[in-house]
Amino acid sequence: MLQVFALRSAGDSSEDATAYVSLEPCNHYGRTPPCTEALIRAKVKRVVVGMVDPNPIVASKGVERLRESGIDVTVGVEEELCKNLNEAYIHRMLTGKPFTMLRYSLSVNGRILSQLGEGSTQSGGYYSQLLQEYDAVILSSTSFTEKSSFPTSQEPKANQPMKIIVHRNPNLLMQIPTVPPEAASQVIIFTAGDTALNTELAQQGIETVVFDQISLNTILDYCGCQGFCNVLLDIQGDCDDLLELIEDSLEQGLLQKVMMEVFPLWDGSEGSSFLALKNLKRSFRLKKLKSTKVKDSVLIEGYFC
Amino acid sequence: MLQVFALRSAGDSSEDATAYVSLEPCNHYGRTPPCTEALIRAKVKRVVVGMVDPNPIVASKGVERLRESGIDVTVGVEEELCKNLNEAYIHRMLTGKPFTMLRYSLSVNGRILSQLGEGSTQSGGYYSQLLQEYDAVILSSTSFTEKSSFPTSQEPKANQPMKIIVHRNPNLLMQIPTVPPEAASQVIIFTAGDTALNTELAQQGIETVVFDQISLNTILDYCGCQGFCNVLLDIQGDCDDLLELIEDSLEQGLLQKVMMEVFPLWDGSEGSSFLALKNLKRSFRLKKLKSTKVKDSVLIEGYFC
Repeated sequence: MLQVFALRSAGDSSEDATAYVSLEPCNHYGRTPPCTEALIRAKVKRVVVGMVDPNPIVASKGVERLRESGIDVTVGVEEELCKNLNEAYIHRMLTGKPFTMLRYSLSVNGRILSQLGEGSTQSGGYYSQLLQEYDAVILSSTSFTEKSSFPTSQEPKANQPMKIIVHRNPNLLMQIPTVPPEAASQVIIFTAGDTALNTELAQQGIETVVFDQISLNTILDYCGCQGFCNVLLDIQGDCDDLLELIEDSLEQGLLQKVMMEVFPLWDGSEGSSFLALKNLKRSFRLKKLKSTKVKDSVLIEGYFC
Repeated sequence: MLQVFALRSAGDSSEDATAYVSLEPCNHYGRTPPCTEALIRAKVKRVVVGMVDPNPIVASKGVERLRESGIDVTVGVEEELCKNLNEAYIHRMLTGKPFTMLRYSLSVNGRILSQLGEGSTQSGGYYSQLLQEYDAVILSSTSFTEKSSFPTSQEPKANQPMKIIVHRNPNLLMQIPTVPPEAASQVIIFTAGDTALNTELAQQGIETVVFDQISLNTILDYCGCQGFCNVLLDIQGDCDDLLELIEDSLEQGLLQKVMMEVFPLWDGSEGSSFLALKNLKRSFRLKKLKSTKVKDSVLIEGYFC
């Protein structure tokens, strides 16, 4: 799809040029006309394809179409890098579910913190960038306090993710941060019961969906229907409402990746808690653990095996 | 002291040479003759000194002595790096206590693990190198199992640290790993009460010291008397015996540094525990957080402020 826009920008200069694409161009009508046809019409001479599209309705048909029309096609250049770049799309194509990453902040002694690192929510900060990269972010209604700000990417012209606020336990207080009117359509509340807040939310233009049972599976199915490729399950502070959901997600293999911000703090405050999932009796290996220094903290990322 | 040995190795080639030293040469008689006299006798032309010695009995007297004898002396080159290199010595000189680092292994969900990363105890592994760098390592008697091996640095010609095994609670089973006979003199047991094992330990040639109250302060005083500059407080697996000691150490500011090995594992096993220090109601900031990838794990280091 993006190739169609890129060729439009390039105009005449695409003639006899080489196009480098991280994913095989599609050969079917979707939201835009096929990318293959756009490349043929633009008279490009050669196309270098990072990886073949795992989508069964593409699967090498794009490459075939280009070759038939006389374009020189090279496939599988920097394939591993392209697979990383397209990991969410590949996962969705192969499983039908969005790629899901769990994120949280940890003190050096292993406690869950409500903080986000200095500058991380500002433009260029890791959290602001993350929000832009993900189609949706799942948050617990119990993690909001009166001071909580509405999570918004500060990147220039950022695509704002859909905020899915989970409220599983009707007995818990649901604190919703003040949502700017223009952002009301980016919020959806998943609740396990009618709450007194529903009318108020409706007045703000915020959609509420009532489910008997809210599991990550339910949420991912909803996200899949919306066409979302990736989802961020974000633990901030009081996450009691999400613990059972995380437990089930681990058991069912619904999480693909984990990211922790390790804070320069030994936390001994009474309010904070450990990520104790009491019903979980199994361990899960991770692979490709990677660390990055961001300001005063260390960011660790890894994939579930 | 090391300068005396370096000059002995260099022999005649030190004449008119420049000597680079991370710490000011001493001007007093200790275990070796003064380094200043050795440099003067070796007829070096110039000495570049990383940092002045904070030891009050040296404190610039070494630099003065060299200058008086006509040697060109430059002071404060790469001073910050030299301060890092000499951090344990500086700490000991300024406080009278050994520099103390707390180490443990953490799962990505914040649980304390008994594992040490693949290859870390082998030659070149981070743990093997750590044992060589530290004068003593403090371990809990409860962390040993029948399978535990005796912690030994595998570096070529390594200086083995003194192993201080803490047994605070006489009601807990004291499991001592099999100590190789030649290493018996490197082990000392700190116990809060007479145990049935004492005779057995004595037969192995292992020293036992009985204290009413074992605190990190007691242990550090002992280490100070032994001339130790740095001590590693090492948490492996079941560390119940050390929790109160860690709590007190944090409260009293006896810990200078922390190192965690973050494992590629989401741990849900029933045996493992969190680093829950229930009586600690305060938090402690850390600075200079740094991360390194070691095999499959990530190593995080930081300093208490």
